[in-house]
Parts: sequence; structure tokens; C-alpha cells
Amino acid sequence: MASLMLTVSTSPLVHPSIRHNAFMPRRCIDQIRLHTTPPIRGCSLSIRSSSSPDTGFTRIDGNKEAKSITDEIKIEVSRMDASIHVVPGLAVILVGDRQDSASYVRNKKKACESAGIKSVDVCLPEDSSEEDVLKYIWNPCSVASTIAINPKKDVDGFHPQNMGLLAMRGREPDFVPCTPRGCIELLHRYNVEMEGKRAVVIGRSNIVGMPVAHLLQNEDATVTTIHSKTKNPEEIAREADILIAAAGQPNMVRGSWIKPGAVVIDVGINHIEDPSAPRGRRLVGDVCYEEACKVASAITPVPGGVGPMTIAMLLSNTLTSAKRIHEFE
Amino acid sequence: MASLMLTVSTSPLVHPSIRHNAFMPRRCIDQIRLHTTPPIRGCSLSIRSSSSPDTGFTRIDGNKEAKSITDEIKIEVSRMDASIHVVPGLAVILVGDRQDSASYVRNKKKACESAGIKSVDVCLPEDSSEEDVLKYIWNPCSVASTIAINPKKDVDGFHPQNMGLLAMRGREPDFVPCTPRGCIELLHRYNVEMEGKRAVVIGRSNIVGMPVAHLLQNEDATVTTIHSKTKNPEEIAREADILIAAAGQPNMVRGSWIKPGAVVIDVGINHIEDPSAPRGRRLVGDVCYEEACKVASAITPVPGGVGPMTIAMLLSNTLTSAKRIHEFE
Repeated sequence: MASLMLTVSTSPLVHPSIRHNAFMPRRCIDQIRLHTTPPIRGCSLSIRSSSSPDTGFTRIDGNKEAKSITDEIKIEVSRMDASIHVVPGLAVILVGDRQDSASYVRNKKKACESAGIKSVDVCLPEDSSEEDVLKYIWNPCSVASTIAINPKKDVDGFHPQNMGLLAMRGREPDFVPCTPRGCIELLHRYNVEMEGKRAVVIGRSNIVGMPVAHLLQNEDATVTTIHSKTKNPEEIAREADILIAAAGQPNMVRGSWIKPGAVVIDVGINHIEDPSAPRGRRLVGDVCYEEACKVASAITPVPGGVGPMTIAMLLSNTLTSAKRIHEFE
Repeated sequence: MASLMLTVSTSPLVHPSIRHNAFMPRRCIDQIRLHTTPPIRGCSLSIRSSSSPDTGFTRIDGNKEAKSITDEIKIEVSRMDASIHVVPGLAVILVGDRQDSASYVRNKKKACESAGIKSVDVCLPEDSSEEDVLKYIWNPCSVASTIAINPKKDVDGFHPQNMGLLAMRGREPDFVPCTPRGCIELLHRYNVEMEGKRAVVIGRSNIVGMPVAHLLQNEDATVTTIHSKTKNPEEIAREADILIAAAGQPNMVRGSWIKPGAVVIDVGINHIEDPSAPRGRRLVGDVCYEEACKVASAITPVPGGVGPMTIAMLLSNTLTSAKRIHEFE
């Protein structure tokens, strides 16, 4: 019988108030190796030196790449279903009614449908107790842990052991957390060279800043993490060949923060008031896009950059989890 | 009856080929909070700006600080023994005959004697199998893991879950690994301000570079890690207010790598040939001390800097482990 694991952690580990978990009602197949996917349609970027900027500018299209990945996953899911009658599944428990979380869950559900992955959502009120939430977690982790999630199904990859394996050289995590993985995947798919480049990560959160810094270092970039206590963030950001903005501060990174020719990945998803917008507000990143696109060689827009890639990576991790549990190579 | 855990991992996690583990033959007491220890004898350093170097220079005395810590531990161990008849213990399995490892084990044994901690060593030949080693591990970890060490007794703190907790904001590891903790402890004891300072870590090893970078970031420093693939290490090192050298390359860091007034922690322990030395070789760090002391405001010597602090932190972690297992606050 299928195993279904619905999970949300009430520990400070979790932010936003969502956790995901893979389940597989039937059986599964092959593997998609996203990192070995060849560069897309000749779209290749070399980081320009600050001394020789050219006028070329690339808008990194997260929607297009996410669709391409989702299409690959869909083929795999169909083969799995046809061959061994297993369809991977993804369960989400949403606690509270944060607007950005709700929007993420909607997008996740739509993406699951596109990929043929089963999707289950449980919405619980903000004041739910840990016990209320735990009721929805099947097959919990059997080891003593601060969270009840079985690491093999923790497709978010937020378990401390997974984070340790991610941070350690020569080790491999069970799952690379979705947003950081989405950032690196975009850099790979746009052929951005990372080895020996200076990378600056703005923000040191557990879900983006810290893991993406480790992933960049694993790619042999030289990484600096800046944060709220950094005294001269603008100056340090300007040292970056690759700049990852994950501070959660709308339009914080201005054109003057960016080295000419740098590649900029904007992880921010911020709603700001805008009386001229249809709903009185609009979505912006951590980077002032209008200024950045005059200086950078490439940048991800918001929306349409890292956001859809996060969802695509979640589907990919879900597929991987299903394959492992059913021991399909 | 006492629990005794002798442990060495043959996994790539372990380097050098030593693992430690705490055991407590009887029962235990209070707690030493090293991080809240007031600065020693008015020895206080502020990081000088590069524009106003003065001629003051401080040799950071690891031997003295380690002795002070060991003395505090000894008092605790005696109180524990007198009150509840428990003496903490430390077991080491040494596989192979690496000279630096053997010397470390000798120093560890001597330090245990000074602190009144029981010490057990097991020396196994280089070609010992995992099974040979596992025979000496009592009370192994009950959870599925790549190593058999119970994290509560893993006083080295190298378990992936411990590393994850160390890396994550808002979480606490069971044990901070000894060498990185020794580095930070020296900075604390010499009142070196870390918040908002630029720190550069040379080396990205699992046992020093990676964890010390996280510890510096937890102290609100802005951290850059440089490594073998970094293109301009000298230039980046020169940005550092606090420079931690942990590359394992004798005398790699020259005077020109150091910002005037910086504080330098030299983690390197390298034996180099020297026909004029009594045994034909001598011990040097990763930093060229003679050059560095003309530029830096403070530096740890080798020997007598980080080395003895590593041992002191190992004793401290052993005491902490004993207290936790016997539920003494």
C-alpha cells in the first residue's frame, strides 16, 4: 500500500510555514540527471570582466527552464506509471494563511498536475498545536530528532543531517533544498562558469543563503556571505562575479551594488504596495531590476526567475524520492 | 557500570585517522561555560585599521589559555568525583601510525592526566578493517548512519547531524568541533571583536575550514572561504580583519597576504626538513610567522597556539558529554 507523509515542522527550522513530503501510491522508474543536462539552445554566458563590458544582456528565463524540467519529469512519471504502476506523490501541510505560502502551494499544485505527480494539501489554522500537525504525518522518522520527518521523504531537504551532508566535502545530501538547487541549476543551464569565480550571497538563512553558499563552494567558487551585520554590503557585493540576493528586502540591491558583467540571481519574493497596480500591490525581488539590467550580464526576473525553478526542483526531488524508495535506478 | 566507547570511523568523514569519544565510569556535576569566561588579565585587542597601524603586537598564547581551561576542568572533574563518584573518560582509537596523529594522542593523554580525566587508547594497524575497529566501539549509535558513533558521545563533533546543527541559524550542535572551537575561544579570550568584521578562512576542510567559517558567521563576522581553486588568494586574504589559516601548507601565508593590524590564527601543523634542527626537521604553521608578526596586530604561534587549545576543547567537550549523560546541570 502507498505510504503518505504529510508534514509540517513547528520548530524554528521551518520557514515559511510549509514542509513537503514525497509519497508514492504505486511504483517507479528511471532517473533524471538535471545537472548533466546540456546547456539549453546554445544559451551560454561567460562572465565578462569589469574592464570590458559589452552591451549584451541576458534575462535568465526561469519559466522556460522550469517548463523544460517539468516536461522531462512528466515523461519519467508516465514511464513509471506504465511500467510499475507507481505514481509519485507530494503532500503539503500548510499552517496559517500567509499569502506567499498559499500562493506557493497553489503553484506547486498546478506544477504537480503538469508533471502527473499526485498532490495532497492539508490546510491547518495558524494556532494548530504540534500534535494537530503530527496527526497528518505518516511514516514518521524513527530516530530521535527534533522533527518528525523521515529524511528519505523530506524533499525540502531541511533536516539537520541533510544540511550537514550538504555542507561537508566528500559527502552527498539526500536532497538538495529546492530554492538553492534551482539557483545553481539556472547557472548550469545558462553555462555560467563558477570555478574560481567570486560569489557573494546576500542573506544567511537556513533555507536559501546558507545552503546556496555551500553549493557555490562545491562548484569551486570563492564564496562570501553578507548579512544584516555586514558593514559595507554594497562594496562587498560589487566584488561578485556571481551575486545571489536572498535577503527578503525589496529592491535592496541597486545598480551600484553590481560589478559590471556580473550574473545576478534574485531569490527575493516581496509584495510591495503600488496604487497603480491592478490589486494595489506588485511583486518585486531583492534586486532593483531596472538598474541591475544596465550593469549585469544576466539576471533572473521576479516573477519568472527562481520561483518557478523552486517548484521544478521540488517535483524533481519528489521523483527522486519515489525512485529511491522503490529501488529503481 | 561505566559505558566506554572507543571509536574510529573509516569513512571519508574522518581526518586525521582519529576519533574520540567520551565515557564516564562513574557520575558527574556542574558546567564550565568557556564562552562567558571574562577576558584574561586585561589582554584585550581591538582590530587596528589599515590606515593607522601601531607598533604593538600580541603573541596569542595558546599554551597559557589551554592551561587555564584545563585547570578549570580539573576543578570540575574533582567536584564531580567527590559528589557523585563519576570521573569523565576519553577513549581514542588510532588507526595507522601517522606521526602527527601519534603526537596528538600523546598530548591528549597528558592533558587528560592534568585534568583528572580517564584516558584509554587503542592503537590498531593501518590495514585494520571496519569490523576490527567496530569491535572497540561500545554503545554504538542506534540510528542508521554512515558512522557508528553515538552523537551524544562524539566529542569530536564530526557527525553530519552535528555539522548540520552547527551550520543552521537558530540551532545548536551537540558539540562544537575542537579545533574550530579553540580558534574562536582564543579570539574571545583576547577580546577580538568579530561582529561586522571581515573574516577570511583559508581552507574548506570538514574538520576546520568549514566549521570555523560557520562559527565566525555566528559571531556576525562577514566570512569568505578561500581554497585551492581560488584565483587570487593573496588579494582576498588581505581583505581580512581576522585571518584563519587552515590549508595545511607550510608557510603559505606571507606577510604580503596580511592586512596591517589583522588578527591571524594559524591552524597549520606542518613538519618541514631543517638540517640545523636537532632532529633534522621542525614544526611550522601555514603562516610565515617572522613576516606576519611585522604586519598583524596579533598571531598564534606554532607550536603553542591552536594546538593546545584543540586538546583543551576536547577535554571540555568530554566533560560536557559526561554531564549531559548523567543529567547534571
